[in-house]
Amino acid sequence: MSSVLKLIQELANFEKEPNAVEVTEEILQRDGFGAQPLFNTLVAEVGDEIVGMALFYPRYSTWKGPTIHLEDLIVKEAYRGKNIGSALFREVIQYSADKGVKRVEWVVLDWNDPAIEFYEKRGARVLRDWDTVQLEGAAINQFLKRF
Amino acid sequence: MSSVLKLIQELANFEKEPNAVEVTEEILQRDGFGAQPLFNTLVAEVGDEIVGMALFYPRYSTWKGPTIHLEDLIVKEAYRGKNIGSALFREVIQYSADKGVKRVEWVVLDWNDPAIEFYEKRGARVLRDWDTVQLEGAAINQFLKRF
Repeated sequence: MSSVLKLIQELANFEKEPNAVEVTEEILQRDGFGAQPLFNTLVAEVGDEIVGMALFYPRYSTWKGPTIHLEDLIVKEAYRGKNIGSALFREVIQYSADKGVKRVEWVVLDWNDPAIEFYEKRGARVLRDWDTVQLEGAAINQFLKRF
Repeated sequence: MSSVLKLIQELANFEKEPNAVEVTEEILQRDGFGAQPLFNTLVAEVGDEIVGMALFYPRYSTWKGPTIHLEDLIVKEAYRGKNIGSALFREVIQYSADKGVKRVEWVVLDWNDPAIEFYEKRGARVLRDWDTVQLEGAAINQFLKRF
């Protein structure tokens, strides 16, 4: 999880949110293992080094039933262009197919044209009319007060 | 769950996707109960009738840790304008606050101005630069073949 956390930080930098990462190695260990882990992680290794990872978990659609959500997929910058990301992606889709879910879902930044092209070429659909809404941190308690 | 399924269908109609609902009452019963339910449901009752519901489940953010995702919130058309939806919404946020999560998340259609205004007034943030990507049904296996 120390390697995974470094990759999470690298992805946050790429997404122009370098200060957004609040989780720690301990939190990832607590939540990713044990009797009811909150997520699964696949890692790509070169020698002893973890150079990429895909982190995903079950979600639920009231239209389709159980689904898989791919939260993060990242390959270290020095190891890009070697199809490591594609291999991780393929494994997540294979896992989803094996589970028999009817939907795999993830998000993409609307300026990330190479990623969008990659997804659409392979039959995925980009839903441009749905926006994500987040209520975070102190705003959660403030929200409750405003009702 | 038979009442919940009717509300799911009513929401799909509102979202202009009347044929999207593939789940059945049996699937909802299987997935929403038992040792490891995939979602929680709050219902609003008037007399013996279920007139509204909120369906949500845990998710995971690699930036914030455990989160709550609100998948659906719907009130029967005849019962709108009575603050039933607000009461359900408040309960989901309260549940999230009690769980100590740092984020509650949901999606909104970008043409649903009254909802967007409701959320933003209460401190939620609409992320317009992230798009949802979905790979569904037969496209999952086709995706695997194209790698």
